[in-house]
Amino acid sequence: MTTPRDYAFAVTHRDGPARAGELYTAHGVIHTPAFAPVGTRGAVKGVTHRDLIGLGAELLLANTYHLHLRPGERLVARAGGLHRFIGWDGPILTDSGGYQVFSLGDRRRIDEAGVVFRSHLDGSLHRITPENATDIQARLGSDIAMVFDECTSYPVSSSQAEASMRRTLRWARRGRDRFLAITAGAVDLDGEVINSSQAQFGIVQGSVFERLREESARETVAIGFDGYAIGGLSVGEPANVMYEVTGGTAALLPEPAVRYLMGTGMPDDLVESVARGIDLFDCVLPTRNARNGQLFTRRGPLSIKQARFTDDPRPPDPECECYTCRRYSRAYLRHLFVNREMTASTLNTLHNLHFYLDTMRRMREAIALGAFESFRQRFHESFTRRPR
Amino acid sequence: MTTPRDYAFAVTHRDGPARAGELYTAHGVIHTPAFAPVGTRGAVKGVTHRDLIGLGAELLLANTYHLHLRPGERLVARAGGLHRFIGWDGPILTDSGGYQVFSLGDRRRIDEAGVVFRSHLDGSLHRITPENATDIQARLGSDIAMVFDECTSYPVSSSQAEASMRRTLRWARRGRDRFLAITAGAVDLDGEVINSSQAQFGIVQGSVFERLREESARETVAIGFDGYAIGGLSVGEPANVMYEVTGGTAALLPEPAVRYLMGTGMPDDLVESVARGIDLFDCVLPTRNARNGQLFTRRGPLSIKQARFTDDPRPPDPECECYTCRRYSRAYLRHLFVNREMTASTLNTLHNLHFYLDTMRRMREAIALGAFESFRQRFHESFTRRPR
Repeated sequence: MTTPRDYAFAVTHRDGPARAGELYTAHGVIHTPAFAPVGTRGAVKGVTHRDLIGLGAELLLANTYHLHLRPGERLVARAGGLHRFIGWDGPILTDSGGYQVFSLGDRRRIDEAGVVFRSHLDGSLHRITPENATDIQARLGSDIAMVFDECTSYPVSSSQAEASMRRTLRWARRGRDRFLAITAGAVDLDGEVINSSQAQFGIVQGSVFERLREESARETVAIGFDGYAIGGLSVGEPANVMYEVTGGTAALLPEPAVRYLMGTGMPDDLVESVARGIDLFDCVLPTRNARNGQLFTRRGPLSIKQARFTDDPRPPDPECECYTCRRYSRAYLRHLFVNREMTASTLNTLHNLHFYLDTMRRMREAIALGAFESFRQRFHESFTRRPR
Repeated sequence: MTTPRDYAFAVTHRDGPARAGELYTAHGVIHTPAFAPVGTRGAVKGVTHRDLIGLGAELLLANTYHLHLRPGERLVARAGGLHRFIGWDGPILTDSGGYQVFSLGDRRRIDEAGVVFRSHLDGSLHRITPENATDIQARLGSDIAMVFDECTSYPVSSSQAEASMRRTLRWARRGRDRFLAITAGAVDLDGEVINSSQAQFGIVQGSVFERLREESARETVAIGFDGYAIGGLSVGEPANVMYEVTGGTAALLPEPAVRYLMGTGMPDDLVESVARGIDLFDCVLPTRNARNGQLFTRRGPLSIKQARFTDDPRPPDPECECYTCRRYSRAYLRHLFVNREMTASTLNTLHNLHFYLDTMRRMREAIALGAFESFRQRFHESFTRRPR
């Protein structure tokens, strides 16, 4: 297995299964455990890139499905790749498009070759295969590309999960072959391969079945990727099941490679997953919930629209040092939210992303200090999912 | 006539009728000619206060009508006034609510006492009079309050304009009396008078009729305000008529007082109005048009959604030094706009406000250099309203 130029991962501290590290890419280093804000179409809703830099975001996630439909990866390649097109100089991870495609329900048809689907925008017909998902991401030039997988829904029978996982493995081999052929210059993409340091991650599936997760992890690792993701979680299963599968799967992944838990989660999910050896996260929760008026605080979520905040002069989280909490009251944020002012989304998003990124920072520090268990306990003593 | 504590205006440079100056308030100095971004409900749509500070905005406009309906001036007063409630430490100007109320059409009824109207939000019945418009603004605690006037529509007969202007004069006397009574402590507003340095501006009406503008200016000045506004323009009249009325009216206003042209306008309107002696502007155009995809550049407006920008790697305005133009291409901004990404509104608003505020900065410099005519000519040689 070859490692891309300028790509490397080093674990710098261990504290039980939890670990802190540094993930190097051609566009900079990501300190792990890390959280990637979701910038679906190359922008995180409600904030600008300079806000993200100010918040300490080191990795941006962009969605291959959305960018493929609009503006299209060829246009992005002509613009010099995704970093140049969107004006973000730091690391970018692109998903494979699989999750969005499988979410289309009736609008998609799966066979061994890949998925045929109709665009949610204009009904036009598209095909994504393990090969062209790789090509699209090569043209986008992200730092981390994801292999095309089938995201198994939940709940599902073990036989369906097994068939789906096995297909994901076959697709993984094809996607990896395609990636290596592109890297070796054996595939002609009209000179539109942007990032010679792009890494590719494999994805472990198998739903909630230990036996399937084991087979998927073993075989995905056997193919050999630059990093490994755990897919098919945060799709409706109970939190304790998610934690169990995450911990069990993480333990099967090679120690030197980065481990990415896709699409998770609530703040306490992040803590519990880091406790089980996860290095990387992405999730729409902090940004989407911000736009819906939910602010995450050390004590738990706070719904800013509630009437009891009408006259409340306190910041959303008195312990928080973000711009929103330093400058604005719950009363003002409630006023902006109930009047549907755009600035409400911006201020709420700044706060929630700060909370998520700060939680990651605190976890990195605790791990470096050998005090992660203590952090974890104190976090749960304060944070509750029950709306306050 | 008394002048409020901490309020003063000084003309520092003259260049023909154009002038540069400094307007002092309890919350800081405004360098004139100045443009006030519109923050209707205490937030400028799409940007945060720190963006506005970064752009060099020195004055924020907030709308009395909207704040009266939600969250209500009593709540704002309890929070310590508008500055504290919205977290903006700089100068704030509040309009009187008149313009919005008269825009309600069938939903309002005018008599000598004032205006009764139904809220556009919930149909609830409200009354605004010269007295309570003054009280509301005292409770908001803005640095500059506007007297309650009748904004004459266009076109209008001279007899209707005359009757409307005379009513505005009667209301101006009542509004001024109320303001002075509050200042003198002779009116009890439950201790909710926030800003002992609040200034009050009178408003000249009279539509496009020279005789009426003369009478309105003379009588409004006779009442004696801390500054003077020209109202009833930018309501549909041709640009050359607006310029003529602006110039004619400005020349009738006392040289030492600040002159504010309300609700104007396009960038070339600002230049032509400064040329006629105006010191202060506000307008929703840069912010509203930004959200509709129109970017102002030195060559004129640019509609970012156009297909010809699909692959355009240039910034919106290659001569512009704003964050948007330094970091982003027309292709990316078009992509964000056509996909209705919130970040499009933010980046477009940052650019347009920069353009407006930078144009004001350049005018101040040109006036200080005695080169305003040269600036004005060069501005018009480059800027055209025809969409590019």
